[in-house]
Amino acid sequence: MSGALSAVPSADRDAAARAFGGLEVVVTGAAGFIGRRLLDRLAAAGAHAAGIDRRPLDEAPADAVFHRGDLSHLPAPVSRRLAQADVVFHLAARNGHTASQEHPLADFEDNVAASLAVASALAPGARVVFTGTRQIYGSGQRQPADEDHAVQPPDVHSVHKETAEHLLRVLAGSRLAVLRLTNTYGPGQPLDGPGAGFTGAFLRQALSGAAITILGNPDLVRDVNHVDDVVEALLLAGRPGAPTGTWNLGGAPVTLGEFAAAACEAFGKTRRIRQAPLPARHRAIAVGDFRCDTSRIRRDLGWRPRMDLGAGLRTTVEALRGTVRHRSSKE
Amino acid sequence: MSGALSAVPSADRDAAARAFGGLEVVVTGAAGFIGRRLLDRLAAAGAHAAGIDRRPLDEAPADAVFHRGDLSHLPAPVSRRLAQADVVFHLAARNGHTASQEHPLADFEDNVAASLAVASALAPGARVVFTGTRQIYGSGQRQPADEDHAVQPPDVHSVHKETAEHLLRVLAGSRLAVLRLTNTYGPGQPLDGPGAGFTGAFLRQALSGAAITILGNPDLVRDVNHVDDVVEALLLAGRPGAPTGTWNLGGAPVTLGEFAAAACEAFGKTRRIRQAPLPARHRAIAVGDFRCDTSRIRRDLGWRPRMDLGAGLRTTVEALRGTVRHRSSKE
Repeated sequence: MSGALSAVPSADRDAAARAFGGLEVVVTGAAGFIGRRLLDRLAAAGAHAAGIDRRPLDEAPADAVFHRGDLSHLPAPVSRRLAQADVVFHLAARNGHTASQEHPLADFEDNVAASLAVASALAPGARVVFTGTRQIYGSGQRQPADEDHAVQPPDVHSVHKETAEHLLRVLAGSRLAVLRLTNTYGPGQPLDGPGAGFTGAFLRQALSGAAITILGNPDLVRDVNHVDDVVEALLLAGRPGAPTGTWNLGGAPVTLGEFAAAACEAFGKTRRIRQAPLPARHRAIAVGDFRCDTSRIRRDLGWRPRMDLGAGLRTTVEALRGTVRHRSSKE
Repeated sequence: MSGALSAVPSADRDAAARAFGGLEVVVTGAAGFIGRRLLDRLAAAGAHAAGIDRRPLDEAPADAVFHRGDLSHLPAPVSRRLAQADVVFHLAARNGHTASQEHPLADFEDNVAASLAVASALAPGARVVFTGTRQIYGSGQRQPADEDHAVQPPDVHSVHKETAEHLLRVLAGSRLAVLRLTNTYGPGQPLDGPGAGFTGAFLRQALSGAAITILGNPDLVRDVNHVDDVVEALLLAGRPGAPTGTWNLGGAPVTLGEFAAAACEAFGKTRRIRQAPLPARHRAIAVGDFRCDTSRIRRDLGWRPRMDLGAGLRTTVEALRGTVRHRSSKE
């Protein structure tokens, strides 16, 4: 992978955001890892940006509006915003594959019912960008998997993400862009909870000074994306005049072992990396190695990942240390 | 299409049912068109058969148990039945493509939430037969469409039927058989309401002596199946030892015009056939000509359609006249 390693938006990255200047834009899930960063970028670029999330947003951007609320019971101001929006980034979701197996109805509420509510509230011509998941390809008979790969979701969560894709297409599809995301890491990522994934778990362990524990096979392949690359793809997909379609937002292939080693290096300290067996509830829905074919998004939207893993992890570790210092100074 | 034209079960048809003798079997949607007929066959073959439906069942088979109730709030006796079942035929559904666009949450409740409830109540080794729909292939880039055709559901109903397929596979998939049905006609079929389709509408009009009105293009191709052929496929798919899998249960290709003419002939009277434009809410989700490739079910389950359209419609008309007489004599 080549490209600039800067953690700050380059002039090129700004160009993608500038297309939103003066537009009415809504970001659902705006207090989340990716949503927060996207809302920042949109506000900075001069969009009339509004975010909604049921979680609080500690530091809303000065130029954006933030509504706290649940998409299943849309607050009136949010309904009005959605009805007037030129572009809606629908990022709100309940994450967690194993959790969805245990609580399928909760997963439905937040991934399907919420998407229905958003679709029903939109103006007919609105552009919608939805964040799907490459997990819907299941164990991937063809690797790297392109967008025409058979859909075989291995767990309730990915069934519901696939359902949401379809519902948005059926009910609000005239200008729909779907980005099927892979593992996203970077500053502000969750370190625990159902959405943390292996990247969050490794970083949490490294931050606490503990050994990094790899569950299952350390040679398992995943593709990972830095959050700035993901936000750029969202901006490219949401721009007025961008094509409609469904794109894999796959990233750079890396093994769990390589990611763990890179995380250690970013912390600048030696930490032990150990292995443990994959727990049964993970094993039941495991999909094995997975890589996405990203030719289509590179061709259609001109996107390419710009952040390499070493630089990306350094920005992440810096942010984590900042947060820890910040938290400590508050106490 | 070749084969016996008898309306009564042949010795061969009985063989498929006999495999269920002594087994614990549950049929959801047992008061519906196909479910009622399936429950009859299972009870007659000596299965310990139980049906559930929220609609009443006028004449439950003597040897079967019928529970009235809603799958979203499983009555305790039904939960126990499901937990003990060797085979579950999950036919309960809310039908209607245009209706689902107007009431997506009601469609969700009855197609997705109900399937979740069934999946959650099953014993681990139970065999499940689910009736999906060929509508999930959408407008069909490849015709006839086989089971590997891309899934592109054109309306909320088919999104939810696809979701139910996935959820059953993920949560109760070890012995799952999915049959993707096309238009089913035959004795006992609904003549109005969201599940009636064009076959029900044509028969209703012909029965009342009115002209048959074809909405849209009379040369539109559909494939249709007689209910006895559908029930036989369900029995073949549910038998102990049958393979697991997903099969198109497509039928014999026929145009709307040909079906209307055959319906007139079955009634033995000349009726006018007229055309009217397709209403806008139908046009919005129309998929054009559609035919299923049925090679896989013929090969894997040994199924083939046995009833030709003329004979099938004669059995249907006889039953309709019987029902009309029966109703009149009650009044």
